Amino acid sequence: MENKGVGIFDSGVGGLTVLKEIRKLLPGETLYYLGDTARVPYGNKSKDTVIRYSIQNTRFLLKRGIKLLVVACNTSSSYAMDTLRKEFSELPIIGVIEPGSRQAIEASKSGHIGVIGTKATIKSNAYKNTISILDSKARVYQQACPLFVPIVEEGMHRSKFAHEIAKYYLEPIKKYHIDTLILGCTHYPLLSSVINDVMVNNVKLINSGKSVAKKVYEYLLGHNMLAKARKGGVEFFVTDAPEQFKKISRLLLSEDINDHIKEVVLEDE
Amino acid sequence: MENKGVGIFDSGVGGLTVLKEIRKLLPGETLYYLGDTARVPYGNKSKDTVIRYSIQNTRFLLKRGIKLLVVACNTSSSYAMDTLRKEFSELPIIGVIEPGSRQAIEASKSGHIGVIGTKATIKSNAYKNTISILDSKARVYQQACPLFVPIVEEGMHRSKFAHEIAKYYLEPIKKYHIDTLILGCTHYPLLSSVINDVMVNNVKLINSGKSVAKKVYEYLLGHNMLAKARKGGVEFFVTDAPEQFKKISRLLLSEDINDHIKEVVLEDE
Repeated sequence: MENKGVGIFDSGVGGLTVLKEIRKLLPGETLYYLGDTARVPYGNKSKDTVIRYSIQNTRFLLKRGIKLLVVACNTSSSYAMDTLRKEFSELPIIGVIEPGSRQAIEASKSGHIGVIGTKATIKSNAYKNTISILDSKARVYQQACPLFVPIVEEGMHRSKFAHEIAKYYLEPIKKYHIDTLILGCTHYPLLSSVINDVMVNNVKLINSGKSVAKKVYEYLLGHNMLAKARKGGVEFFVTDAPEQFKKISRLLLSEDINDHIKEVVLEDE
Repeated sequence: MENKGVGIFDSGVGGLTVLKEIRKLLPGETLYYLGDTARVPYGNKSKDTVIRYSIQNTRFLLKRGIKLLVVACNTSSSYAMDTLRKEFSELPIIGVIEPGSRQAIEASKSGHIGVIGTKATIKSNAYKNTISILDSKARVYQQACPLFVPIVEEGMHRSKFAHEIAKYYLEPIKKYHIDTLILGCTHYPLLSSVINDVMVNNVKLINSGKSVAKKVYEYLLGHNMLAKARKGGVEFFVTDAPEQFKKISRLLLSEDINDHIKEVVLEDE
């Protein structure tokens, strides 16, 4: 079991922010990363379609031989976790919603927590419901920011447009005096400085990458499943345009991917 | 043959601007419209993937029984026409590039023609090459505008962001003194007033819908394939989120779709 890898999937390139944290904490593990770049974005698709794609992604990674799956995509984590856990009952699956929610509750003093994400993530109320279960006193304020992903994908996350659109999306939740804001999409960490500028009053930004990595570590340790190797590796798979993936990944990882990025076609059910 | 319908596909909702013109000119025809909303946008995908999706779309429409296919999507028209014509050699196929190019050449006095489109459409040089073949004296200036589609999809095409982003994309081609600008994406007609504002100097905007409809009419007439009926109809198919399709279609058609919009899953090759 310990020789098997850890699978990670995302709708595209954003999940690399999660991969980066896992790699840091678990350098001995072999990681398989799948970015469904042919069908990105997931954030404005329906629940059924997101579930269907998430199942296909999981099947693909299972065939590589994995001992644990990380659903790095917030939209998939919001919509597909129940189905994935039912469909793949033997496979431990870790999503980003619960670790991110815990991190936010720990960080918040006032208990006023903001959540920003794709349309689908916000519509699902996944963060809101999870936070309510973990801390019934917390107040959650949500805002969908559908143009953030295309802005990051275009590399315009430092532009004045990014700033203006952030202002447009974030003004409405500023009035709730939140002290903590969950970046509920793997693309959003790239907009951190812009979001900080707009929020002004020292709001803590929560990027769940770190707490997801911690949860993976604890799970593998607790189940005696940690890799014996000192140095693992990563295999990258995308469903479209590996060169574009490489380009944007430079922004996200602040390092070049030298490994080969393999283009694959997923099987429909 | 005349009892069969006309198939139209687009990556999403944008092709409805083409459907509208066909409906106006050919009210007796039965039209089948497929919007691949589960995989929209095509404009930043690779050539191979766009071709694969275009083949699947065509197969789906063929099963409905069609006598002619309109590829309303500019990206598909740019990348997939040769393959589709080879793969479906019995089926007459009309794309948007050639009609749009002709319309632009006729409209331009100076012979300086601008083209805006998705990354893929611009990268393919489809308009540039077609215009060069039709009029070797014409000068073509191209600009990709990747944020235009998400802005329209978000219903923000009248916002100040739309204006600012249009300015950002269009300033560079203004210096070439073009008198004609091809809107090389079916979403762009919704940005016409914003584009006109930015271009200032009376540039003619070319939306190929009308010339595509004319070409369909001429083909069916010339081949004695026109429907005998006085009143046809439309059947709508989408691969995801019919309600969202309905909502945006209101913007594009300036009328409600009362017909049922059927959600379908396409077959992989």
